[in-house]
Amino acid sequence: MKQAFHTITVPTKGPGLYEFTDDAADFVRDAKIENGLLTCFVRHTSASLLIQENADPDVQKDLQDFFARLVKNGVDFRHTAEGPDDMPSHIRSALTQTSIGIPLRDGKAMLGTWQGLYLFEHRDAPHRREIMLHLIGE
Amino acid sequence: MKQAFHTITVPTKGPGLYEFTDDAADFVRDAKIENGLLTCFVRHTSASLLIQENADPDVQKDLQDFFARLVKNGVDFRHTAEGPDDMPSHIRSALTQTSIGIPLRDGKAMLGTWQGLYLFEHRDAPHRREIMLHLIGE
Amino acid sequence: MKQAFHTITVPTKGPGLYEFTDDAADFVRDAKIENGLLTCFVRHTSASLLIQENADPDVQKDLQDFFARLVKNGVDFRHTAEGPDDMPSHIRSALTQTSIGIPLRDGKAMLGTWQGLYLFEHRDAPHRREIMLHLIGE
Repeated sequence: MKQAFHTITVPTKGPGLYEFTDDAADFVRDAKIENGLLTCFVRHTSASLLIQENADPDVQKDLQDFFARLVKNGVDFRHTAEGPDDMPSHIRSALTQTSIGIPLRDGKAMLGTWQGLYLFEHRDAPHRREIMLHLIGE
Repeated sequence: MKQAFHTITVPTKGPGLYEFTDDAADFVRDAKIENGLLTCFVRHTSASLLIQENADPDVQKDLQDFFARLVKNGVDFRHTAEGPDDMPSHIRSALTQTSIGIPLRDGKAMLGTWQGLYLFEHRDAPHRREIMLHLIGE
Repeated sequence: MKQAFHTITVPTKGPGLYEFTDDAADFVRDAKIENGLLTCFVRHTSASLLIQENADPDVQKDLQDFFARLVKNGVDFRHTAEGPDDMPSHIRSALTQTSIGIPLRDGKAMLGTWQGLYLFEHRDAPHRREIMLHLIGE
């Protein structure tokens, strides 16, 4: 049994989905592990992870809009010291995912046909986000 | 250390929760791995995974109703080419889970007394959904 | 490759976030596994897991308030036999997470600077909650 680790850095420019499917695939190929488990983990509390449709870009815009409507910026929060979009970003992160585990067969993460891996940035200002990848298998 | 893989196919007939606790238990038993980690992964973006109460069937109906109210079909989305229930299904998936990891002791997934494993179908039309199971341990 | 298991019991006194970052760190240190994957799993359907900011306690209060507003107690549910806060608690659990996987490097879970591990209690009455920790690596 072997392990491999990798950190992906994603520069973001405001709210939205940033795909890292290809970066994860590159890591898996280089690790030379054929069968196992891939774990993606985001090291932030105002950005999150999502597996979503990678076919129609409108899906990503609709997702972003929905979360912006469900958790509106600047509305009635105690925690405002870091800006009106910080607390809503924590909540949008809580509503989505911090880690995702994906089985690996024959050297490929077993994503479905339409599944892509995304960082979901919730903050307005540009950020550099870190996603840690872990692979275990053989 | 050993690994095992299995794919469960769940035929769905409209929105709702479809339990696969027993299928997962069968897989674990057949794999002859006593202690480790079980990962469940759904290969779709309009159906998701959920661990919920398996005692009172009303819980499942209430869950389904809540998500139908929170993300209404056909309301103001860009992505409508695949039907008025497709984009809401992507959002309901984003709000729940794509993968779940469960520790395994003495040959059993360590689910709590009331916990059941469910596929959460969000679309109206019948579908065949795939859940990949991965087990690592010894 | 080695494994380790541990159960954390968290006594709760009503809705809110209960941090277990230090308990998880203690377990990791005692397990003497340097690099691998840590999985946290909650064995309940009316309490969940969350990684959130551990700097400003207001973040936790705002989170709790948001979920209380989004899923109000006692509103129009079928499942009411266990009290008006039970079904909302199942839904709040469904909206957050049951399991979280975190890569481990050099003997430390790779949490980001501001990330803390929390049990999110959704019920009003006191409970004893169990979180199972699993570690695999070497």
